[in-house]
Amino acid sequence: MSELKDIGITTRKEDDFSEWYTQVVTKAGLIDYSPVKGFIVLKPYGYRIWEIIKESLDKKLKESGHQNGFLPILIPESLLSKEKDHFKGFTPEVFWVTKAGDTILPDKLAVRPTSETLAYQIFSKWIMSYRDLPLKINFWNSALRAEIKSTKPFIRNSEFLWQEGHTVHENQQEAEEEVLLILNYYHSIIENFLAIPTLKGIKSEREKFVGALYTNTLESLMPDGKALQMATSHNLGQNFSKPFEIRFLGRDSKQYFAWQTSWGISWRLIGALIMIHGDNKGLILPPKIAPIQVVIVPIFKKKDRAIVIEESKKLFAELNSFDLRITVDDREEYTAGWKFNDWEIKGVPLRINIGLRDINNNNLEIVRRDTGEKMSIKRKDCINSLHVYLDQIQKSLFEKAKIIQNNNIVKITNYDEMKKLLNEKGGFILADWCEKEECENNIKIETGADIRLIPFEKYPSDNKCIYCNENSKKTVIFAKAY
Amino acid sequence: MSELKDIGITTRKEDDFSEWYTQVVTKAGLIDYSPVKGFIVLKPYGYRIWEIIKESLDKKLKESGHQNGFLPILIPESLLSKEKDHFKGFTPEVFWVTKAGDTILPDKLAVRPTSETLAYQIFSKWIMSYRDLPLKINFWNSALRAEIKSTKPFIRNSEFLWQEGHTVHENQQEAEEEVLLILNYYHSIIENFLAIPTLKGIKSEREKFVGALYTNTLESLMPDGKALQMATSHNLGQNFSKPFEIRFLGRDSKQYFAWQTSWGISWRLIGALIMIHGDNKGLILPPKIAPIQVVIVPIFKKKDRAIVIEESKKLFAELNSFDLRITVDDREEYTAGWKFNDWEIKGVPLRINIGLRDINNNNLEIVRRDTGEKMSIKRKDCINSLHVYLDQIQKSLFEKAKIIQNNNIVKITNYDEMKKLLNEKGGFILADWCEKEECENNIKIETGADIRLIPFEKYPSDNKCIYCNENSKKTVIFAKAY
Repeated sequence: MSELKDIGITTRKEDDFSEWYTQVVTKAGLIDYSPVKGFIVLKPYGYRIWEIIKESLDKKLKESGHQNGFLPILIPESLLSKEKDHFKGFTPEVFWVTKAGDTILPDKLAVRPTSETLAYQIFSKWIMSYRDLPLKINFWNSALRAEIKSTKPFIRNSEFLWQEGHTVHENQQEAEEEVLLILNYYHSIIENFLAIPTLKGIKSEREKFVGALYTNTLESLMPDGKALQMATSHNLGQNFSKPFEIRFLGRDSKQYFAWQTSWGISWRLIGALIMIHGDNKGLILPPKIAPIQVVIVPIFKKKDRAIVIEESKKLFAELNSFDLRITVDDREEYTAGWKFNDWEIKGVPLRINIGLRDINNNNLEIVRRDTGEKMSIKRKDCINSLHVYLDQIQKSLFEKAKIIQNNNIVKITNYDEMKKLLNEKGGFILADWCEKEECENNIKIETGADIRLIPFEKYPSDNKCIYCNENSKKTVIFAKAY
Repeated sequence: MSELKDIGITTRKEDDFSEWYTQVVTKAGLIDYSPVKGFIVLKPYGYRIWEIIKESLDKKLKESGHQNGFLPILIPESLLSKEKDHFKGFTPEVFWVTKAGDTILPDKLAVRPTSETLAYQIFSKWIMSYRDLPLKINFWNSALRAEIKSTKPFIRNSEFLWQEGHTVHENQQEAEEEVLLILNYYHSIIENFLAIPTLKGIKSEREKFVGALYTNTLESLMPDGKALQMATSHNLGQNFSKPFEIRFLGRDSKQYFAWQTSWGISWRLIGALIMIHGDNKGLILPPKIAPIQVVIVPIFKKKDRAIVIEESKKLFAELNSFDLRITVDDREEYTAGWKFNDWEIKGVPLRINIGLRDINNNNLEIVRRDTGEKMSIKRKDCINSLHVYLDQIQKSLFEKAKIIQNNNIVKITNYDEMKKLLNEKGGFILADWCEKEECENNIKIETGADIRLIPFEKYPSDNKCIYCNENSKKTVIFAKAY
C-alpha cells in the first residue's frame, strides 16, 4: 500500500487475460493469498462486494418464507457415503479431519464439501407430517473442495463462500416451482445487480449435480470465450429423501417420501464481475454492487488546500445523508493523480473532482469510470445528476455485455467448424444433439467443450446431431468452461 | 413438530437446571444435535437470534470504521506454532486435516481454532507504513475446538459461531483505547439488548488469552451460581507483531513493531440469555433480541372462524407496517391452547389474543410472557400500547436479573467461608488477593473456583489475601465457571 509501489495494471486484458485478471484481483485490493495453496483471503473491499450480493439475495429469500440456519462444518464419512453417486462425486476432493488434538478419530470427518447429507439426516427428524412442510432453509457458509488443478481467485479455490439452500416439499410440483423461483432470483441479481447477461437452461444428465433429478443453471460467457456456471438450482426429486428417510404423513393419512431441492451461488460471481466489466485500468463495478459508488477527490494548489478540503467534506456530508455509498479521499500523503489511479483500479463508478474553480462556479466535475467521460454539473443538481449517471452506468454495462454475449452465440451445424471455432475463439456454440451421452463424451474428449446447458429459450433446430448426424430433438449450448 | 408430542418443559429450572436447559434449547426450536458429538445445528429460530445480535454489533463496528473480511478455515501447523504460548494453549483441542482426497498432506492443517496466526502473517504483508494504520478488520465465522469434557449447547461445543476482530495500531495508547471501545460495545449489546447484567474487568495473568498482554472481560452470573465469560477484548501488545514481523515505517521514518488487539463474542451469549431469563414454561426473550416480538392468536368457536381470522389478518397487516417483528398464528391444525404453549416455550414477549368479543368491543387482550399478566387494551391504541409493554418487558427483565446478580456478589474475608459458599450456592465472591499465582492455583485446585475478573469498579479492600493472608492490593471476583 506504499506510494512507492507501481500500483497500475501492467498487462492488457486483450494480451494476457489470465495475468490481467490476477493483477486486477490483487491490485484492486479484493484478495490476498493464504499461505496454503488454493486458499484466498478476502480483503474488506472484496468482502464488501460479497456482503452486498448476500444482502440482496437474503432479502428476497426471507420475503418468500426462507429462513437461515447453521450446520456444522464437519460431516462424518459414514453419513457422506449414504447417497452413493453423490459420495463418488465429491470424495476425491474432500479434506479429511483424522485427528482431534493427539487423538485419532474412529470415523473420519469431512470438512463440508456441501451439506446435503448432513442436512437431510437432520431434516428426517424434523419432518413428521405435511404440517411440517414446506421446509425452506438456507445456509450462508463456506464449502471446501481440494483443488488439484490450477487455482484462480474466486473461480477455482479450495474454499469458497457460498449459500446453499435446501427445501423439502409435499409434492413434485412444489419442488419444481421452488427450483424455478430460485433460478429467477439468481437471474435477477446477476442481470440487474451484477449487470451480467446469462442464459437459462437445464444441465444434461452428464453435467447435472450428482444425486439430482435435474439441475437448472445460469451460464455466462467470459471475454476469453469460456463459459462460467453462475448459479445452479437442483430438483433432487426423492433421490435423497429415500436413503435419508425423509418421510411424512400426507393429508390422506398415508406415508410419503418428500420432494427436495437444493441451490446455490458462490463468490465466483465476483470473479465473473471482474472478467466481464474490467478494463486495462482495472476493475469496473456496476453501481448496484459497488462498495463505493461515488468518490470525491479534492484537487488543490497548496494555498487553496483549506477551502477545497472544507468544501469536499461539506459535499460529502450532504450526499452521505442520501441513499448513496460515498467516500471522500482527503488523504494528505497522496497526490490527486495517484488517487485517480487508485480509484480507477478499484472500479468506483463515479468520481467527483472538486477544485477551487468548481467551487467558485458552483459546478462539479464528474468522471465516469466505465467510459472515462468528464461532465460538468451544477452543484445544486448534484444528487439528481449522480443518480442519473449511476443508472446510466448500470444499464450501459449490462447492454455492452449483452451485445458481446449475443455476438458470441453462434449456430453451428458442422462438427469441423465447431472444433475450429472452439480452438480459435471459443464462445457459446449452439448445436443440435441426439441426447446420447456417447456423443457428448466424444465431443468433450475431442474438443474440451461440454454441454453447458439445454437452453429454455427455443432456438431453430436442424434436426441432426452435430456429432453423429442422427436425429436430434435438442438444440444445446456447447462451450469450454472454467 | 407433530401435535401428538408432549411439547412442554417437564423439568423445573430450580430442580434440575441442566436438564431444564437442555429441554428449553431443544423444545423452543433453537437447536438440534449433529450426529457428531459436541456439534450442534441451529434451527432458524435459534439462528435468527444470532442474526439479530450480529446485525446490532456489525452496525456499531462499521460506524467506527471497522470492516469485515474473510479468512480461510484451514491454517498450516507451521504457522499456528509460530507464537509458542499461543500454540501450546490451543493444540490439545485442534481438529487436524491430514488428507485431501487420498493424498496425505505434508504440513497438516488446523481447522481454525482462532485466526490470530493466519491473520497476522497476512497483515505483515499489508502494513508497510503508518499510512496503512490503523487496520481494523472483523471476521464473522466459526471456530473449532475439540471439546473433550461434557458439552452443552451454545456454552461448550466443538464448533461455535463467533466474530473475531483484529486491529493493528501505531502505538500502545490506540490499542488500549480500541480494547475499551470494543468492550463497551459488547457491554451495551449484552445489557441493553440481551438484558443481562455484566461485570467489567481484567483477567489475571493465569486466565488471560494465551499470547495477550492483557485481556479485558465481561462476566455474568448464571442462576446455578456459576460464572459465564460473555466477551473478551485482548490487548496483544507487540507479542504477535514481533514473531509475525508486523513492522511499519513511523512518522519519524524509523521502523516500529505494531500494537495489536483482538476481541470476540460468540453464540454463547444465546446460552446466557436462555439461562438468565427462561422459566418453567420455557424461553423468555427480551424484545430487542426476539425474532418474533408479538404473536397474534385468533380464538374462536367454529361458527365465528371466518370473522376472527379475517380480523387477525387485518390486525397483522396493520401492525406489520410498523417497526415490529410480528406474526399471526392462523394454523388450522392446532388449538388455541396448544398455540399458547408453543409461543410460551418459544419466549415471544407479547401475545395478542383476539376473539369475537374483543372484536365487538374494539378491544384486544394482551398477555405478557415474562409475568403472565393479561391486559385489555383499546384496539385503536394498539401500536402505542405494544411499544410501551415491549419497553417495559425489556427493562423489567434487566432489572430483575440485575437484582439477582447484585444479591449474589458477596464480600468474603475468610477462606473457609468462601469454600462453604462455593460449595453450597456459588456466586460471585469478592475477595482480596496478593497477586501471587500460587494462591490463585491453590484456590482453583481446592475449590474449583478461579479469578473471573479483577473488576474495574472499586470495591472496599481488607488488604489481606484470602488464601495466604499476606498483603493484598487487589480485590477480585472468584467464581466457579462454565
